[in-house]
Amino acid sequence: MDTYQKAPQPLYEGKASRLYEVVDQPNLLIIERKDDVTKLDGEVRDHIEGKGAYTNRISNQLFRQLGKHGIPTHFVQELTDRETLIQRTSPLLLEVIVRNYATGSLCKRLPIKDGTLLRAPLVELDYKDDEYHDPLINHDHALELGVVNNEDELYGIEELARSVNTVLWNFFKKIGIILVDFKLEFGRLPNDKIIVIDEISPDTCRFWDAKTKRSLDKDVFRTGMGIDATFAAYREVFDRLTAKPE
Amino acid sequence: MDTYQKAPQPLYEGKASRLYEVVDQPNLLIIERKDDVTKLDGEVRDHIEGKGAYTNRISNQLFRQLGKHGIPTHFVQELTDRETLIQRTSPLLLEVIVRNYATGSLCKRLPIKDGTLLRAPLVELDYKDDEYHDPLINHDHALELGVVNNEDELYGIEELARSVNTVLWNFFKKIGIILVDFKLEFGRLPNDKIIVIDEISPDTCRFWDAKTKRSLDKDVFRTGMGIDATFAAYREVFDRLTAKPE
Repeated sequence: MDTYQKAPQPLYEGKASRLYEVVDQPNLLIIERKDDVTKLDGEVRDHIEGKGAYTNRISNQLFRQLGKHGIPTHFVQELTDRETLIQRTSPLLLEVIVRNYATGSLCKRLPIKDGTLLRAPLVELDYKDDEYHDPLINHDHALELGVVNNEDELYGIEELARSVNTVLWNFFKKIGIILVDFKLEFGRLPNDKIIVIDEISPDTCRFWDAKTKRSLDKDVFRTGMGIDATFAAYREVFDRLTAKPE
Repeated sequence: MDTYQKAPQPLYEGKASRLYEVVDQPNLLIIERKDDVTKLDGEVRDHIEGKGAYTNRISNQLFRQLGKHGIPTHFVQELTDRETLIQRTSPLLLEVIVRNYATGSLCKRLPIKDGTLLRAPLVELDYKDDEYHDPLINHDHALELGVVNNEDELYGIEELARSVNTVLWNFFKKIGIILVDFKLEFGRLPNDKIIVIDEISPDTCRFWDAKTKRSLDKDVFRTGMGIDATFAAYREVFDRLTAKPE
């Protein structure tokens, strides 16, 4: 097995992860998941010991599933519990939300009842800009803002997002979890191919237990149930994902 | 000339107009433009004597132009200074905004500098709902909310909106006015055809004098320059529209 040496200082530090260059591997990065958790646009911050290992391993498990279905992601190899080797991309300034059930901001912005199963999966594009609070945009906005090179790329991204949803919806269904909604990010490879980056984890998805509708994701933290309950929810998702079939 | 008799009571009264049924003409309505003007989501209200006659005659003039270019509208016949005979439709719960220059809400929501000429005309769909302050929506939202029957209708509406923009941009250019942005509404005829309804006037457009960039629209009122200045701006648009070519 190859060994990969992290650069001494992170290239970038976000709310939930750090990115490092890899010595002698200009096309790769190492992502290290942190134990920090935030809510309310980053205004409230806490620390959940061991969370980073769960988000890392859950996300890798899901990216492997996407890979099996031919969906391109930045995932290369899990290095440690918290560290993963990924392809280096130019990240697009876009958050792509896919919703199967209505909840959260959708129900604040529009007259749709919380908990409604949507007629069809609903895809939203948000412009990634903290200062503007990641506003909803449409294709024309994305082109004006230079988020992509042309509208065909937007159609391709939306198509990829819907495929991710189909794969993950079915995958979670088998382990008794409803994939309520989730956020995807995308990056551009040097050859202009656009692939799924960032993470897919309880930090970026809403999961409901199929029987009880109990939240198994960051909403446990958002709704003030505390860090122990949050950690337990993340662990439960991981345990269900990795349980041997009976 | 036929005569059309208004029903005694309005069918509907909005911020800037009243709609009446027409005796023995179930497919027609009469729209009567009011002198009321509002801002801040209807919170501030004022009265500008004679404004309704200008919005009515300006709108009719513009709808005639659209008709000449094959764009279907509800306009049938100007009856009086304030009253117009229109085709009756089922209005869609949609406001379609077309922008040529960035200003107003676009620059509050996104990092685009006020006054920027946009790369290409930008079309936005807002869900018409006062309680939710007419939020921006995308195609998936429109389908979930049942605003239209299918996505092809949305593409058709956006195409119509872009055609309206082309016709009016050129039309206003000839009289020294920049069509900065405007709002369109659409209605459905019994045969399912979707046509332009409501009005196109200084109440629903932003116009700038091409030389001075001075506002010739409701922004005069919005920015607190008073009702006399507002009336003068509306009259100036009307005068330029109806001036005989030199």
